[in-house]
Amino acid sequence: MPSEFELIARYFSRASAQAELGVGDDAALLRPTPGRALAVSSDMLVVGRHFFADTDAGLLGHKALAVNLSDLAAMGARPRWALLALALPTPDEAWLAAFSHGFFALARRYMVDLVGGDTTRGPLNLCVTVLGEVGAQALRRDAARAGDDVWVSGELGGAALGLAHLRDEVALDDEHRDACLLRLHAPTPRVELGLRLAELPRVAAIDVSDGLLADLGHVLTRSGVAAELSLPAVPAHAAVAARLARQPAADGLALRCLLAGGDDYELCFTAPPQARAAVQAAGAAAGVPVTRVGRIVAGAGLRVLDERGAEVAIDVHGYDHFVA
Amino acid sequence: MPSEFELIARYFSRASAQAELGVGDDAALLRPTPGRALAVSSDMLVVGRHFFADTDAGLLGHKALAVNLSDLAAMGARPRWALLALALPTPDEAWLAAFSHGFFALARRYMVDLVGGDTTRGPLNLCVTVLGEVGAQALRRDAARAGDDVWVSGELGGAALGLAHLRDEVALDDEHRDACLLRLHAPTPRVELGLRLAELPRVAAIDVSDGLLADLGHVLTRSGVAAELSLPAVPAHAAVAARLARQPAADGLALRCLLAGGDDYELCFTAPPQARAAVQAAGAAAGVPVTRVGRIVAGAGLRVLDERGAEVAIDVHGYDHFVA
Repeated sequence: MPSEFELIARYFSRASAQAELGVGDDAALLRPTPGRALAVSSDMLVVGRHFFADTDAGLLGHKALAVNLSDLAAMGARPRWALLALALPTPDEAWLAAFSHGFFALARRYMVDLVGGDTTRGPLNLCVTVLGEVGAQALRRDAARAGDDVWVSGELGGAALGLAHLRDEVALDDEHRDACLLRLHAPTPRVELGLRLAELPRVAAIDVSDGLLADLGHVLTRSGVAAELSLPAVPAHAAVAARLARQPAADGLALRCLLAGGDDYELCFTAPPQARAAVQAAGAAAGVPVTRVGRIVAGAGLRVLDERGAEVAIDVHGYDHFVA
Repeated sequence: MPSEFELIARYFSRASAQAELGVGDDAALLRPTPGRALAVSSDMLVVGRHFFADTDAGLLGHKALAVNLSDLAAMGARPRWALLALALPTPDEAWLAAFSHGFFALARRYMVDLVGGDTTRGPLNLCVTVLGEVGAQALRRDAARAGDDVWVSGELGGAALGLAHLRDEVALDDEHRDACLLRLHAPTPRVELGLRLAELPRVAAIDVSDGLLADLGHVLTRSGVAAELSLPAVPAHAAVAARLARQPAADGLALRCLLAGGDDYELCFTAPPQARAAVQAAGAAAGVPVTRVGRIVAGAGLRVLDERGAEVAIDVHGYDHFVA
């Protein structure tokens, strides 16, 4: 049976272009760019909680890094380094080979160096820490002001609908199933969009990991403001939109996926109305659509409005890791 | 039941003196000192593997941070920031209160700010990431050269003997039991010593987490050298020394604890012979004894010598997280 050290050497030691010293010492040594703020985030993914035990290891390698890069995207930071701590029930080499392949494929795409971490035996658990650098301005959650627009990147609800399919709560046709599972298993962190938004004046952002209402709610709380969300404006994933169009009144599931579905890893952000053209240009340059879905108002709380501007009673809540 | 967000706010959100932005956004924002290398390390502790399920939560909070600070000590880095990702079977508030108390008590001692992390439900798992700053020189594993002395801080074997006691492999008297369990559960990271050694020319270091032979072996491999270790010179914890004195030939356990016991978190380091007085002064200033235990020679491998200089056949190996 290969040792911990052999496994690290075989699957996780790659030459590091961006580190003074990478995997193989007590700590990695990095040289941050002078004058830049360093953005750091850790996310832990647990089997049975964040993914199924039989999830493809390559997709899991992608996702473990993607959800962390999404946090950097939501700060407007450029990803540079990552650490991976990994508990495995057994040192399954085929699994490790596939996992590291998925992890490094995404790392290369964003020029992220894996510079350290840990491997141990235990119930499957993936803890990734990412470090990135912020340019002119970080996209802080406390930057929203009354009068700002609320925006969302991409489309929402697909990942949650895919999860509902895997849980047998819904039976999707093949095309929608494949599209939704891709959203669930292989999210695209909106790194490029975050970097471009960071060049605009006063943008607040968060990534949609727990559901639009819950995540926008964090921005509102931190900024001390309220918001009105236009339900018809919220961009729905095609599979979610199809369900909403078919039986709009009856389908609570589609609405839940749209407003409270986690795992989409799109950005929800606010910006002053004067920046509308610049926000659209940022989305176009980053290759992801951006949609204006509401506005920030004074006060507290979040109201969802229908196409006539009447408040919709919404009985959904975001994903909380202890209140399920 | 409190939500994830309430738990974070209650137990893990402390004002951060050293971060531009701490817990509560997508990522923490740090301002590293310009010109300093940043040392970063992640360690994962798993229940049933690194600690027993009934381990006191306060001690566990201490240890989860201590083992990471030990990695920074072994690089000669000054600890500054930490992130904590935590999987818990249930959000047990008494456990969290005790855990955070132990964690923050040690953090305060070394002026470390907790700036981020994650909480989720799952089998108990603690993943801590620490960031520190290196001064003039990092204590790299590849810096040992033939002719250097090999040194060890403090005393070895106590933690492993404590673990053997908990596993009913040995029955210690009360005094030795208490002393050994303190070593096992509440190790002292040698941060101050690491910082002082980093001021000397060309010191290689590693922390003794997997056992002296295994950890010194990593230094030898990375530096491309060999070593001769004087067995009588290796500083044994009092409880280990007592067993060795009582039945030196018979007691394989005490010898295993001394040479291959993990969890002591002392530093093993090399330095040129000209630095002997400076090394002793560094230990005195840091308040920890340092002992010369051998020398680096050309070649490969590690020989353990008895008081007459004859090679001792040692059938022990370090702790490997997959080969147990």
